[in-house]
Amino acid sequence: MTVGHFDLICRAAKLYDRLIVAVAATSVKAGAMFSCEERVSMIQEDIKAAGIDNVTVVVLGSLLVDLCREYNARVVIRGVRVYSDFEYEFQMALTNRKLSPGIETLFMMPSENYAYVTASAVRELARYNGDLSSFVTPAVEARMKERIAGKEKGE
Amino acid sequence: MTVGHFDLICRAAKLYDRLIVAVAATSVKAGAMFSCEERVSMIQEDIKAAGIDNVTVVVLGSLLVDLCREYNARVVIRGVRVYSDFEYEFQMALTNRKLSPGIETLFMMPSENYAYVTASAVRELARYNGDLSSFVTPAVEARMKERIAGKEKGE
Amino acid sequence: MTVGHFDLICRAAKLYDRLIVAVAATSVKAGAMFSCEERVSMIQEDIKAAGIDNVTVVVLGSLLVDLCREYNARVVIRGVRVYSDFEYEFQMALTNRKLSPGIETLFMMPSENYAYVTASAVRELARYNGDLSSFVTPAVEARMKERIAGKEKGE
Amino acid sequence: MTVGHFDLICRAAKLYDRLIVAVAATSVKAGAMFSCEERVSMIQEDIKAAGIDNVTVVVLGSLLVDLCREYNARVVIRGVRVYSDFEYEFQMALTNRKLSPGIETLFMMPSENYAYVTASAVRELARYNGDLSSFVTPAVEARMKERIAGKEKGE
Amino acid sequence: MTVGHFDLICRAAKLYDRLIVAVAATSVKAGAMFSCEERVSMIQEDIKAAGIDNVTVVVLGSLLVDLCREYNARVVIRGVRVYSDFEYEFQMALTNRKLSPGIETLFMMPSENYAYVTASAVRELARYNGDLSSFVTPAVEARMKERIAGKEKGE
Amino acid sequence: MTVGHFDLICRAAKLYDRLIVAVAATSVKAGAMFSCEERVSMIQEDIKAAGIDNVTVVVLGSLLVDLCREYNARVVIRGVRVYSDFEYEFQMALTNRKLSPGIETLFMMPSENYAYVTASAVRELARYNGDLSSFVTPAVEARMKERIAGKEKGE
Repeated sequence: MTVGHFDLICRAAKLYDRLIVAVAATSVKAGAMFSCEERVSMIQEDIKAAGIDNVTVVVLGSLLVDLCREYNARVVIRGVRVYSDFEYEFQMALTNRKLSPGIETLFMMPSENYAYVTASAVRELARYNGDLSSFVTPAVEARMKERIAGKEKGE
Repeated sequence: MTVGHFDLICRAAKLYDRLIVAVAATSVKAGAMFSCEERVSMIQEDIKAAGIDNVTVVVLGSLLVDLCREYNARVVIRGVRVYSDFEYEFQMALTNRKLSPGIETLFMMPSENYAYVTASAVRELARYNGDLSSFVTPAVEARMKERIAGKEKGE
Repeated sequence: MTVGHFDLICRAAKLYDRLIVAVAATSVKAGAMFSCEERVSMIQEDIKAAGIDNVTVVVLGSLLVDLCREYNARVVIRGVRVYSDFEYEFQMALTNRKLSPGIETLFMMPSENYAYVTASAVRELARYNGDLSSFVTPAVEARMKERIAGKEKGE
Repeated sequence: MTVGHFDLICRAAKLYDRLIVAVAATSVKAGAMFSCEERVSMIQEDIKAAGIDNVTVVVLGSLLVDLCREYNARVVIRGVRVYSDFEYEFQMALTNRKLSPGIETLFMMPSENYAYVTASAVRELARYNGDLSSFVTPAVEARMKERIAGKEKGE
Repeated sequence: MTVGHFDLICRAAKLYDRLIVAVAATSVKAGAMFSCEERVSMIQEDIKAAGIDNVTVVVLGSLLVDLCREYNARVVIRGVRVYSDFEYEFQMALTNRKLSPGIETLFMMPSENYAYVTASAVRELARYNGDLSSFVTPAVEARMKERIAGKEKGE
Repeated sequence: MTVGHFDLICRAAKLYDRLIVAVAATSVKAGAMFSCEERVSMIQEDIKAAGIDNVTVVVLGSLLVDLCREYNARVVIRGVRVYSDFEYEFQMALTNRKLSPGIETLFMMPSENYAYVTASAVRELARYNGDLSSFVTPAVEARMKERIAGKEKGE
């Protein structure tokens, strides 16, 4: 989770009574640094530290529209930073509207200070021991350091 | 008002208790077919015909963030159809966030069936007496016909 | 083959005496649900069902410009739905023009009702048993169901 | 007419038995250097000089789909150079498809050597007496020089 | 001049021995708040206040490539914030390369904190007496206030 | 290295006293035709053949900002051809500015004649024995032919 993702969670949590954050099981590639469960637990840790109490973090192991029905969610919030995000998001939103016309997708921008933070830049920084504190949340930074230290010890 | 604008109003009206539709005074250019007040009245007519009762239509004669404060609105909904929309909308949303950090801008897509409808195509159709019924709402179509008939009579 | 691809084939078949549909051998990744030959056969089935008789379906196992020369084709028709399509298509078209100046690439839009259908959304739907009928052609849907049923039986 | 427009006319003339080039009456703004009739005549001159004999140049004083019906044209060819072209063209093509489903719009690229030529750059060059020969056709260049020489003599 | 323009001037002034800032005469529209000469003088004021001494501000009353030759400039620096900037800038840069192959155009980004500041938003803010201090430089803000106060007194 | 990359190196070498060309170790995927060291050596060969003597070619095995500090480089030059390049480049440039505010990224365009050349088109051409001479530099073409000939002999 980058600082941009966390900024979006904080913004969305203010606008709605209840927010479900869904971590897609299929977005976790083989060889990824963190498992799906670790991601859920890091987000929970950051949300708790920020004093936000109306957010539930879940693993998305079904179609998004099915998760919405399960939680009676009528709105899907998606972050958009750049144009290629937007293109993909438009296609997903129209697909979901086709599958479930009663669920509306709304797009939200992170702060412009986080718009440039990408997961691939974070990975590059981690590989070369760059300073991650402006790019990821404290929970993620702590675990990444543990993981890297663990690797160096040969675990 | 095109069918795309009306689609967005109907969608947004379902998501919130109260929706303010603001017609920008400065968006009405010299020589435009309809005045700002006529636009407000056409939108009111279409909304009434659709049985929607939680929408107020106003003229925007100030900064958008000032209108939001006046009505205690915390969310601005903007329609986005295509990429150049998105670019302009991003800049406006970041400007408004700078002016008033507590107000969030959310973007919503009209139905893909209306994504291609542009005001300039509507004007071209009207100039050459094309069939407007798939492009504008009934109230707008009725008034455009009156206007054109009036012009032909030399009014 | 999505409904968008099929829409393009139907449109192009009306504009030319003879249409060659080429399935790129290199576009079939390891682990894909259907082989190149199965793809050819599904397209043939859908075209026959639609009563179209001026279309030949082939496997593309060479440069596209070489296939054009083999069939004396002077025009390449490519579908474009979104901007990132367009960017890639522009580069390919200019490369092909360099390789063979006499062959012209023309771009065509599918119906706006299919513009949002992506192969990755179809795969996601199939994974979670979503309804595929609005996204793929009948021949593809039938075979996907067979394949998934086969997997569940442990074949 | 820039060299890019002319490149497209030459390419399209090779692909079809008969090509109608339509100069939109409404695209000629007040204060423009050339009238609609002058534009038609310059294009005719350049086409003749290039030895192309299957092209008719007309003024577009109606909806494009009505012109197509008048000439029994089934295909509209539009040039696309850059992304913002593409966006506008997509909306126009979908509008025309709605108005007349039997007419198909195809997009064609000019040579990459002309992709950067814009009408506004040509105007800027003309204003400051820059060399226009790489940017406009011979007929246009000749008339622009006449026009500028005429202005300087106080006509 | 917005804060984004000024950020670019400061960045470019650090990279080169000498920087010429050119204010295009043709970019000043009829009815604009400031004349070309006023713009030059405001930029000079802001540059002096920032302690930058290797920058010359001039009016651009010719082709950009001619100005470059006059000052023996080999590099043109252009700011790019968003994609539509980029498209226009690419076309201008290729046109200038055609006119003068020895002059290279380089693109530079302003700080992401200024990427959203547009001249049209500044005008809207000024019209409705919004706070301009985060959007324009001190010299521009001071003169805009004078101008608006002058108007209110009936000058 | 495509002809577009080489065009950029030649242009940049004229603008600066000293140019470092960095080949990213992480950009060389498993199964790639050439190793990182072979790439360095091919670039060196092409640069020497072109008579350019102020360019050093290195392997990038650290963060780009660390390489800049090592060589006291204050400017990073990046080539941009198309919009999706630009998007990625913007994010990288802002990330690098965050990591090292004193290093500026400038973007440069290759000749429009090379804008369409992509590495994937080059691979496709190589696979089907297409003519590579308009797409890659002489050193790359020679080695690709050697490699392909070697493969056919069963090495």
